[in-house]
Amino acid sequence: MTKPLSGLKIGILGGGQLGRMLSVAASRLGFSCHIYEPVAHPPAGDVAQEVTTAPYDDRAALKAFARSVDIVTYEFENIPTDALDVIEAHCPIRPGRHALEVSQDRLVEKAFLTDIGLKTAPFAAVDDPVDLAEVLEEIGPPGLLKTRRFGYDGKGQARVTEPADAKAALAAMAGAPAIYEGFVGFSQEISVIAARSLSGQIACFDPGQNVHRDGILRTTTVPAPLTTAQRTDAVLIAGRILNALDYVGVMGVEIFVTPTGLLVNEIAPRVHNSGHWTQNGCAIDQFEQHIRAIAGWPLGDGRRHGDIEMENLIGADMARLPELAADPGVSLHLYGKAEARAGRKMGHANRWLRPA
Amino acid sequence: MTKPLSGLKIGILGGGQLGRMLSVAASRLGFSCHIYEPVAHPPAGDVAQEVTTAPYDDRAALKAFARSVDIVTYEFENIPTDALDVIEAHCPIRPGRHALEVSQDRLVEKAFLTDIGLKTAPFAAVDDPVDLAEVLEEIGPPGLLKTRRFGYDGKGQARVTEPADAKAALAAMAGAPAIYEGFVGFSQEISVIAARSLSGQIACFDPGQNVHRDGILRTTTVPAPLTTAQRTDAVLIAGRILNALDYVGVMGVEIFVTPTGLLVNEIAPRVHNSGHWTQNGCAIDQFEQHIRAIAGWPLGDGRRHGDIEMENLIGADMARLPELAADPGVSLHLYGKAEARAGRKMGHANRWLRPA
Repeated sequence: MTKPLSGLKIGILGGGQLGRMLSVAASRLGFSCHIYEPVAHPPAGDVAQEVTTAPYDDRAALKAFARSVDIVTYEFENIPTDALDVIEAHCPIRPGRHALEVSQDRLVEKAFLTDIGLKTAPFAAVDDPVDLAEVLEEIGPPGLLKTRRFGYDGKGQARVTEPADAKAALAAMAGAPAIYEGFVGFSQEISVIAARSLSGQIACFDPGQNVHRDGILRTTTVPAPLTTAQRTDAVLIAGRILNALDYVGVMGVEIFVTPTGLLVNEIAPRVHNSGHWTQNGCAIDQFEQHIRAIAGWPLGDGRRHGDIEMENLIGADMARLPELAADPGVSLHLYGKAEARAGRKMGHANRWLRPA
Repeated sequence: MTKPLSGLKIGILGGGQLGRMLSVAASRLGFSCHIYEPVAHPPAGDVAQEVTTAPYDDRAALKAFARSVDIVTYEFENIPTDALDVIEAHCPIRPGRHALEVSQDRLVEKAFLTDIGLKTAPFAAVDDPVDLAEVLEEIGPPGLLKTRRFGYDGKGQARVTEPADAKAALAAMAGAPAIYEGFVGFSQEISVIAARSLSGQIACFDPGQNVHRDGILRTTTVPAPLTTAQRTDAVLIAGRILNALDYVGVMGVEIFVTPTGLLVNEIAPRVHNSGHWTQNGCAIDQFEQHIRAIAGWPLGDGRRHGDIEMENLIGADMARLPELAADPGVSLHLYGKAEARAGRKMGHANRWLRPA
């Protein structure tokens, strides 16, 4: 076994709550972090050694950032390719470029997943009204039209319930290249939070069941109600994706459970909101697992000690702080954001249900 | 119930590992921290929003620090009184002055403990050879001569096995006021990590058993092997101390278990090394419990989920990092100190033994 490195300095692109919790996890391993974020006073800046406030097209700032750290990682996948080029000239980026290229484009992602033998919802590229008409003929409604790039939390999506919705849906794409995804009748959505180390070791946390509202994740509950076969399948799917990408770090894999088997909905090459329960359910959480992987450490113990419900605290949910703070079953994780705007993720509450 | 405050800024005097872990706990509640520490690049600085590097007699720096935060707390008890005066003119210090005055002087501390009806080892003040001769007559050897102030990790102590050791022991005090403590035959030393909220609510973590070597804590194991009566006694003792001091925050109470009952060895008005196991054994650890208390929040859930052994990693122990990092039962907590000097606390390992 190689000796785990100590005293590393880790660069994190993005200073939101994921960067914040990654920085905290890095500190547990004796590492320090440097946050790169265009917006001043980011949540991650409160728990980092250094913060650079600069846009992603500031090559000088990116170069200085890359030179100041040993490894760069990120909390979001939509990093401009030019920024990656500047950074990679000075230090490794983990997870690597391939994973980013695949996950930055819904069409490339779906094609990659089917190429490695996994099932997804039926999909097709849509660039114009003619494409859409053909696709609606072939796959049929209902379905979702989504921009291929830069979508998150339900943004950049339009529902197509019948052919007459086509025009408005296409208009909602505002000219951006799109993908049509046929509706899938699923009984539940689950997430596998999977990690792969630099040496190829793989470990998955127990799958959790996700519930969304208005396109935003509200709760993740572990364990998800799955058969043993489904659970094994889900973990094998995640493992296949990680190996195919020669992946290093933590990935969130969203999966639909359907009567005909598991379909991969989406992959995120980073720590994931549906993995926040691990902070109170496991000895090593998803954030430390990610830092261990990118730092070349062996993966840690992700066994689940308890049944947990993670609830996102969004906007006005912060008014419930008094009850939540006094609830003996709840561990709070707040992000230090000043303003509780509607739809803004302000924190999350992990509720301990029972020992595993 | 009062509404828990959000977005507080907390000042921490001292930037070592305790300040580091307090700052991380504060971030979970959405708070940010400002570290005040005379030595540059302190471990806590890696996970804090702001760091002031200045000595404790720099009144201008102390004033600016106090003005920048909502509450001040500390990671060590030997803060000069003048510094406290400057700070207290601008914001509250929690735990309060009374707890600090008591714990800064071993003689005052022992007198306080016996005043509130608790048992300690036999003790007496020693200022000169005449005092020491009298005390050795009265209490008798074996015992320990200790400086009344500024002792930690076995420093400022001299053993007196027979009357002939008296001269050398007194010389080791270097003229500082001292206290003689008669040796107590104890079966084990335990710690109670106790918390008291601003509204007077008290919660104690399960007592742990401490093992020292060369005057430094090596391991704390929970649960300590105690009878139910002993466990109840230990918790009641801690509660009595906290109430008597109108205490706000977490306190470490070291207790000797003897054939004739429990004797209080020492109190520390802060988070304590023997409470580090709570990071992997409880939903809310001692660091968050302390932050909750000083911020005026309700105390959190300190119930123990597992049996844990906490081991300090001291100096050359860092050579064991490869095994520890790969051990699936171990959660590591490293402090980010560059140099692994002999006797220096570099981190700790929490080993999960079994569910509670």
